[in-house]
Amino acid sequence: MEPLTQVTGGVTAARGFRAAGVEAAIKYPNRKDFALLVSDTPASVAAVFTTNRVAAAPVQLDRERVAAGQTRAVAINSGCANACTGEQGMADAREMAAAVAGALGIDERLVLVCSTGVIGVTLPMARIRAGASLAAAALSPTGGDDAAHAILTTDTVDKQVAVRLEIDGCDVTVGGMCKGSGMIEPMMATLLGFVTTDAAIGARALDTALRQAVEVSFNRVVVDGDRSTNDTLIALANGAAGNRALDPAHPRWGAFVAALTHVCTELAKKLVLDGEGATKFVTVRVTGARNDGDAQKAARAVSKSALVKTAWFGNDPNWGRVIAAVGYSGADVDDQQAQIYYGDVCAYDRGRVADAARLKELQAVMRHPAFDVTVNLNLGTGADTIYTCDFSYDYVKINADYTT
Amino acid sequence: MEPLTQVTGGVTAARGFRAAGVEAAIKYPNRKDFALLVSDTPASVAAVFTTNRVAAAPVQLDRERVAAGQTRAVAINSGCANACTGEQGMADAREMAAAVAGALGIDERLVLVCSTGVIGVTLPMARIRAGASLAAAALSPTGGDDAAHAILTTDTVDKQVAVRLEIDGCDVTVGGMCKGSGMIEPMMATLLGFVTTDAAIGARALDTALRQAVEVSFNRVVVDGDRSTNDTLIALANGAAGNRALDPAHPRWGAFVAALTHVCTELAKKLVLDGEGATKFVTVRVTGARNDGDAQKAARAVSKSALVKTAWFGNDPNWGRVIAAVGYSGADVDDQQAQIYYGDVCAYDRGRVADAARLKELQAVMRHPAFDVTVNLNLGTGADTIYTCDFSYDYVKINADYTT
Repeated sequence: MEPLTQVTGGVTAARGFRAAGVEAAIKYPNRKDFALLVSDTPASVAAVFTTNRVAAAPVQLDRERVAAGQTRAVAINSGCANACTGEQGMADAREMAAAVAGALGIDERLVLVCSTGVIGVTLPMARIRAGASLAAAALSPTGGDDAAHAILTTDTVDKQVAVRLEIDGCDVTVGGMCKGSGMIEPMMATLLGFVTTDAAIGARALDTALRQAVEVSFNRVVVDGDRSTNDTLIALANGAAGNRALDPAHPRWGAFVAALTHVCTELAKKLVLDGEGATKFVTVRVTGARNDGDAQKAARAVSKSALVKTAWFGNDPNWGRVIAAVGYSGADVDDQQAQIYYGDVCAYDRGRVADAARLKELQAVMRHPAFDVTVNLNLGTGADTIYTCDFSYDYVKINADYTT
Repeated sequence: MEPLTQVTGGVTAARGFRAAGVEAAIKYPNRKDFALLVSDTPASVAAVFTTNRVAAAPVQLDRERVAAGQTRAVAINSGCANACTGEQGMADAREMAAAVAGALGIDERLVLVCSTGVIGVTLPMARIRAGASLAAAALSPTGGDDAAHAILTTDTVDKQVAVRLEIDGCDVTVGGMCKGSGMIEPMMATLLGFVTTDAAIGARALDTALRQAVEVSFNRVVVDGDRSTNDTLIALANGAAGNRALDPAHPRWGAFVAALTHVCTELAKKLVLDGEGATKFVTVRVTGARNDGDAQKAARAVSKSALVKTAWFGNDPNWGRVIAAVGYSGADVDDQQAQIYYGDVCAYDRGRVADAARLKELQAVMRHPAFDVTVNLNLGTGADTIYTCDFSYDYVKINADYTT
């Protein structure tokens, strides 16, 4: 893959996008909690949503509207998920979109809405309307940073990335932002993620590219194995770069998908790095599985095991918990064939346990803020990778205190 | 169901059984860590084992030997799981059985062995041999208590129960003990459980009764959702009570299965009460599901959710996390039909959220050391119940410190 040029600006790095993040006091005063992202011209849109059967009102509304293939604006509030709110919730989601459309003077069907926060609480509509006006007035081509802050909940840092590449002699930029810290094992999207590009690309091709990118990025992170009711990832492409429309036959299709995948992967990794209470970023690689499906099952089970995650927190190279998780994952495994590594150090080799001297080396690997755990099943060529984190006192603290 | 008479004595409550628990210094000095359970005459045996594809050496050996239908003795060590130990592990398991057989003067094929503790460490055979001699010499008809202590690992209390009923004019006793505190979502058995009865019953009928009992007891508890490599539940029946042999056609079959189920359920609940770091015992009931399978999926997802369990720890009636878990469980759910109760207090009623006044009542329920969480999906007649616990700082502490 060609090297990508990193740029700043997040969702406003690409031409023709403006954004804002303002204080609307949705749940707490004095913090940005209402974001608005606008394309100057109608943009091709593609999106992936939660697979949770309980889907929040904004997810239900956006599913309808994304099908039309074009979007001008996305409004996002934090502090309230508008989930399990019934007909009132659907009416509120529509009214939120209408308020934004009114403030921008555009067709409300070209507006998407996203909400994140506590489940089972209805949106404070007066504040939402005020937020929409404030945000519309504050829109700026450098507003990506404010927007990235306004969408956060228990996150401790904002999560943005942008890259630039050349297509048809034109500079094409792909940028994005996301939020999410707990309730994370997105199977189709993360809590909330937004990617913008000035590439010219139709909605259908954008959807193809997005699904390819998501499969190896957002669909490969686990914080706690809980899957949200509001997971949404939206990609907008407004064509401002001037390239010929991208599709799988375009000579630069691969380069564009690689750039989109890079943006999604970096955003997804930022979710894990900021996982609730996380102190370690762990890449779980499973190789030598009977097939890729087995490798994914094994990697997910290891990444979700409370016993494995607490051992990581404690710098304990307790590989027995790793192989136990592989054993109940449903993947084919023979413990007399398997090997387990922490970084490059072998902890378990086909029935032979690392000696006591090796234990110090293993613990040294685990004291790094980021390390790999590799399980080679030595049964075939299946492989998969999951990005995950450890499980600390702070995860319990954050979630025992995050009050209804 | 007829009332059962509770008796003391655990695995030695039934006639014709002796037990012992001695200090063999398997991992630590000065604690009982080697247990021996002996039937004075060959007993019918039935057992269920872990479904983890990585099965420990003693599990592999016992699977072979239980098939023969008769057992005289079961030896159990804590401090070392003898799992992932390859051919050496199998040889050690056989030698442990042989040492016990030698000390007792019986056929080694009538001896079962169980191990629990750290994975990937081989048994210290000199200490195992010494433990076998010591335990054989210490056998006593009141040794159930010592045995129940010798099998513990991170458990904080011993777990025993025994009941008596009348069959064919004979007093029949069913007693048991178990251990287990973490790595618990047994699908076929718990970490280690032992049930003895003096009922006359063939191995095949005992197997039928045991599987029925396990399905609603050990297979319905979750501590952390991890499934061990060593899960084993063994039932021995030596016929000392003098009843006619029990089988499904015997008029007292139902009463015997009920007694066995009671013993298994009480032992399983004790596992949860002593779950690593647990401060609350929670019974998760799902009713009104499309079918029983959906109800079980939903109840398991709620019981395993780190977000739900930390909210229980924090006395937070955050029902949004409960319905989110139901939503990703795979069970059919419509959030506009569902109801959620904590104890008898309704938190969420088909789209309507409990008001702020009700919040105090919900928190009052959660401050009890044991409470029910009931989800009525209102879609059908499927129902299931899982016994589980909360997720506290101490779970993290115990498992970050439990060292390799």
